[in-house]
Amino acid sequence: MNIVLLNMEEAASGRLPVDDHRAKHILEVLGITLGGRFYIGVIGGKRGLATIQALDEKYISWSVEWVEEMQKSLPWVLLVGLPRPQTARKILQDVSSLGVQGIHFFVTEKGDPAYAQSSLWRDGEAEALLLKGAGQAFSTLVPSLAVHSSLTEAIVAVGKNAYGQETKVFLDIYEAEVALDAAVREASAALVAVGPERGWSEKERGLLRQHGYVGAHMGERVLRVETACVAAGAVVLAAMGVWKRHQL
Amino acid sequence: MNIVLLNMEEAASGRLPVDDHRAKHILEVLGITLGGRFYIGVIGGKRGLATIQALDEKYISWSVEWVEEMQKSLPWVLLVGLPRPQTARKILQDVSSLGVQGIHFFVTEKGDPAYAQSSLWRDGEAEALLLKGAGQAFSTLVPSLAVHSSLTEAIVAVGKNAYGQETKVFLDIYEAEVALDAAVREASAALVAVGPERGWSEKERGLLRQHGYVGAHMGERVLRVETACVAAGAVVLAAMGVWKRHQL
Repeated sequence: MNIVLLNMEEAASGRLPVDDHRAKHILEVLGITLGGRFYIGVIGGKRGLATIQALDEKYISWSVEWVEEMQKSLPWVLLVGLPRPQTARKILQDVSSLGVQGIHFFVTEKGDPAYAQSSLWRDGEAEALLLKGAGQAFSTLVPSLAVHSSLTEAIVAVGKNAYGQETKVFLDIYEAEVALDAAVREASAALVAVGPERGWSEKERGLLRQHGYVGAHMGERVLRVETACVAAGAVVLAAMGVWKRHQL
Repeated sequence: MNIVLLNMEEAASGRLPVDDHRAKHILEVLGITLGGRFYIGVIGGKRGLATIQALDEKYISWSVEWVEEMQKSLPWVLLVGLPRPQTARKILQDVSSLGVQGIHFFVTEKGDPAYAQSSLWRDGEAEALLLKGAGQAFSTLVPSLAVHSSLTEAIVAVGKNAYGQETKVFLDIYEAEVALDAAVREASAALVAVGPERGWSEKERGLLRQHGYVGAHMGERVLRVETACVAAGAVVLAAMGVWKRHQL
């Protein structure tokens, strides 16, 4: 955790109970005490530098110098065939760090629909991983998350929140027409669909093409789904020129 | 395992003991029996399609249709600050899948030198992960591996096997001069240095610059080391135009 993320109420209160997991992280992992400083952020909002002002048996309290400029969200959305839960955990955390706006998992024809019943999707575990990934990246911007019962449902849901001018690609090592970076070069936004471990069905490929998604590849090497999601996200951001536009 | 990797002797014999872990994978995980086919490769050599010709209590035997054309190795090398073993395991497997030619870990000033004593670096565990990553990617090309006691040692070792015209970059979110993709655009080969979890020391930055490495960034988001290695590898391959040259 590089930045401590709070909801608006917690941020307004300027304190956390000492037994909160974030308070414990500040005190025990970061080893910060009275007068010490740490990065703080409001989920979906501003970031700032906090200074611990008081510390007692019940609360840790701080003051904050807020940075007025809001962080920019990055213009990409991920659709991904529902993988086994352990793979989904890595994807949730890592693509959140990479600044994805939304992650849409969907049950695939060749995948196991039982994956959708995992405890990961209940009790906030998935959301906690998104927060962890954002916190790793010093970001307050937490991606939206949905689990759909089919690719069609995912495509329709993503289309409703579309940017209007996005480039749509799906990773397909077998039937790709173009390299991923060439497909999204200088695009203003990208929707990236990654298939399940066992690959796309013919019906799914047809659906994607019908909705304007273009098959793209990252060379001839078959990657694990979680590796492909990170690799594709980074390539898309680079090729769109996002890192040049958002200069440090 | 998408391709079963063998050494030259094993490949020449055309068989494996049934209790070998690859034989078990073929029979139990892939569920292939007499007459069934699977992809096979010689480590560092050719690939082919094998057909099981005999199966008894001791051996699984096959014939192979070899593909004469050798796979091309990808022109990048990774230097990475020695992380905790669990992180190193992910890096070994994933960047092997991404076709790196060599991985050079090195003990860093801000890192823990005890990481070099992990069992990971003995008894072939690291090498097994490299094989696993290559096998995932349908590749017979297994990266070289070295663990150095310092950054200087790593830079010297990498320099000895250099391509002659490589572009050298180090990831540095704080003092980067250029976006990673811009730094390696159309380069013929790239050496990519990734810092340890706690970042570069000033001395390490100086050493890198002295040896011609340019600071590069992937935006303003701080990534986990294993995420950064995958993201950087993919971006470098895309920006160098490797995926266009090696068209499917």
